[in-house]
Amino acid sequence: MTDIIKTDVVIVGAGPCGLFAVFELGLLDIKAHVIDILDKVGGQCAELYPEKPIYDIPGLPEVTGQGLTDNLLAQIKPFGAEFHLNEQVDTLERLGEDGFRLTTNAGTVFETKAVVIAAGGGSFQPKKPPISNVDEFEKESVFYSVRKMEAFRDKNVLIVGGGDSALDWTLNLTPVCGKVTLLHRRDDFRAAPDSVNKMRALVAEGRIDLKIGQVTELKGTDGKLEAATVKGNDGEIFDIEAEAMLPFFGLTMKLGPLAEWGIHLHENLIPVDTEKFETSEPGIYAIGDINTYPGKLKLILSGFHEAALMSQAVARRVNPDKRIVFQYTTSSTSLQKKLGVA
Amino acid sequence: MTDIIKTDVVIVGAGPCGLFAVFELGLLDIKAHVIDILDKVGGQCAELYPEKPIYDIPGLPEVTGQGLTDNLLAQIKPFGAEFHLNEQVDTLERLGEDGFRLTTNAGTVFETKAVVIAAGGGSFQPKKPPISNVDEFEKESVFYSVRKMEAFRDKNVLIVGGGDSALDWTLNLTPVCGKVTLLHRRDDFRAAPDSVNKMRALVAEGRIDLKIGQVTELKGTDGKLEAATVKGNDGEIFDIEAEAMLPFFGLTMKLGPLAEWGIHLHENLIPVDTEKFETSEPGIYAIGDINTYPGKLKLILSGFHEAALMSQAVARRVNPDKRIVFQYTTSSTSLQKKLGVA
Repeated sequence: MTDIIKTDVVIVGAGPCGLFAVFELGLLDIKAHVIDILDKVGGQCAELYPEKPIYDIPGLPEVTGQGLTDNLLAQIKPFGAEFHLNEQVDTLERLGEDGFRLTTNAGTVFETKAVVIAAGGGSFQPKKPPISNVDEFEKESVFYSVRKMEAFRDKNVLIVGGGDSALDWTLNLTPVCGKVTLLHRRDDFRAAPDSVNKMRALVAEGRIDLKIGQVTELKGTDGKLEAATVKGNDGEIFDIEAEAMLPFFGLTMKLGPLAEWGIHLHENLIPVDTEKFETSEPGIYAIGDINTYPGKLKLILSGFHEAALMSQAVARRVNPDKRIVFQYTTSSTSLQKKLGVA
Repeated sequence: MTDIIKTDVVIVGAGPCGLFAVFELGLLDIKAHVIDILDKVGGQCAELYPEKPIYDIPGLPEVTGQGLTDNLLAQIKPFGAEFHLNEQVDTLERLGEDGFRLTTNAGTVFETKAVVIAAGGGSFQPKKPPISNVDEFEKESVFYSVRKMEAFRDKNVLIVGGGDSALDWTLNLTPVCGKVTLLHRRDDFRAAPDSVNKMRALVAEGRIDLKIGQVTELKGTDGKLEAATVKGNDGEIFDIEAEAMLPFFGLTMKLGPLAEWGIHLHENLIPVDTEKFETSEPGIYAIGDINTYPGKLKLILSGFHEAALMSQAVARRVNPDKRIVFQYTTSSTSLQKKLGVA
C-alpha cells in the first residue's frame, strides 16, 4: 500500500492561480502539495500559449505564458511546494469534519485539511476527429499539439481543420516539413483572414496542397501512418499519403472526476462566495477560471486575488487557534525571512 | 471661468490601483482623467517606499515601489490618460441621474459620468507638531518634506523628530546646510541603529548639534523663522536659532474632502459590493485600500482585481447600449490594436 501523504492543503491544478496560491499560503506558513494532470506546471499558460504574449498581468506590460509561469515559479520557490505532475485526482472522500482523502489516478493518496481547486477550465482534452481507428495511431503518428516543430522536419504531414490552429500550423510547418497537406471539410475557413490569405498564396505557389473532405479511416501498420482515406464532399473517396496527421478540432475542457465530489456546480463552474472562495463543501475552495460569483471575470489577475483571500480562510481552518497577523512583504521582516530575503 | 472638462470617468488617486484602472477601462474604450494630490504618480508606492522591494505582486518576484509604478505607467501608455497632479478634488455634486461635477482645489472642473475613488488610505498629510503658531510659518520656513535639498543650501536648519525621516534628513542635509540642529523630545531614537550611530558620530565631530526638548513657540516675522523656543526635559527654556524648521512627526492619512461627498463610510473606509465595487452612491466606485467588503485585504493585487470588475460596471454605465464582449489580450486582435501591439 502506498504511504499516505498527510498535509494541510492540496491544490488541484498548477496553473498561475494554483502557483500563486502556494505563495499566499506560504506567507501564512502553510505548505502545499500541488497536483496537475499535465506533465508541467503553468496550466493553460504553458500548454496553450507558452510563447504568446499576455498584456494584462498588472505590472508586467508584456509577458509570455511561459514567462509568467517561470516568474511565478521563482516567486514561490521559498515555499518548497511539492508537485505531483501527470496525475489527476480521481476520488475525494470526506474524513470526518476535519479533512479529506484524495486519491490520484497514479495511486497517490493524500490526507489533507483543505482542498483548493484551481483547475482552470477543468482538464484539457483535444477534441478527437470521428475516425474509427484514430486511437491506434495516437502514440506514433497522430498528434493534437506541436511540442517541437523539429519532430516534423522533412515529413509528409496532413493537417486537418479550418480554425486558427490548423491554419497557423500549416503556415509554420510548411518551411519545415517535406510536404504539407491541409484538409478541411469545406472550402471556407474560420481562421483569421490574414492567415487564410497566406495559406491560399502557398496553395497558388504549389507549396502546399489543399483538399476538401473528411477523413474516414487511417491506413498504416503498428501505429505508423501511411495514408488517410478521405471522403470528398462530392462523395468521391481518395487517399492522402501522410506520415503524420495533426487534427485541430479544438480543445474541450472536461471537469473530469471533480464533478463527482459532491460540490455544487452551476453550468460546469463552481459557485463560491467572495470572502473565502469556498465551495458548497466546507473546506473545499475554488479559485481561478473554474469558479463563479457575481461579476466574475476569467482573468488571471482575478485568480491571484482569489488565492490571497482563500489563503486567509484556509489558514483559519488549518490553524484555528493561531492568530493571523496581516503583514506586508515590504515592511515585515518575518515575511521577508520566509521569502529568504531578510 | 475655467473650461469644464467633460469625460466618461474621473479616477481619484494615481496609486497602483488607479493606474491599473486606466488600463482596464482603456481596454473597454473608456478614457480616464486621473487626479492626485501628490506631485507624481504612484501613490504610497512612489511616496513611502519608492526604493523598497515589494515581494507579493504576482509574477514579479521582487519589484520596488517605483519599479512597479514605472511598469504600470508603461502598461497604460497606450490609453493616453490625462493626469492632474498636485490637485485634490474638493467638491463633488451630482448632475441629475447621469453624472457628477467635480471641482479641485486648483479650480479644475470635471463633468463625468462615473467617479472611481482609488485614494488608498486617503490623502497623506504630515502630522503637525503641537506648536500654537506653526501655521504662520508653514509657507516660508516650516516644511514637512524635502522636495529639493538645494532649497536648504547654506541655511541654518532645525530638524525635529526621532524617527527614520528625521535622522535620514539630518544625515543628508548636513553636507548641504550651513548648520543643522536635531531636536528630539528624548535622547532615544526610533530610527535605524545605523542612522543613529552616524548621527552621533556627527555630533561627536561637532558637525551638528543635538538638543533634547520640545518646541513650544516659533519666533520670526512675516512667516520668516528666526528661532524656535524649546522647553528642555529639565524644564529649562531656551531658543534655537534657525531659518527653517523640518518637523518629521510621521504621516497621517486623512480621508479629506471625500468624506463630505455623501458616500456611506464605515470606519473611514468605503463599503462596496464585490460585483461592481460600487459605493452607496450609484456611479461612484471605490477600489484599492480605501474600500471594504467581507474578506477585504489591503493588497495591491486585490486592487487590480477590483479595477477589472469595476471597469466592466463603468462600461455598462457609460455606454449602456454597447454590448461588452469579454476578450483576452492574448488572443484578441482588437485588444492588441488598442494596446498598439497588433
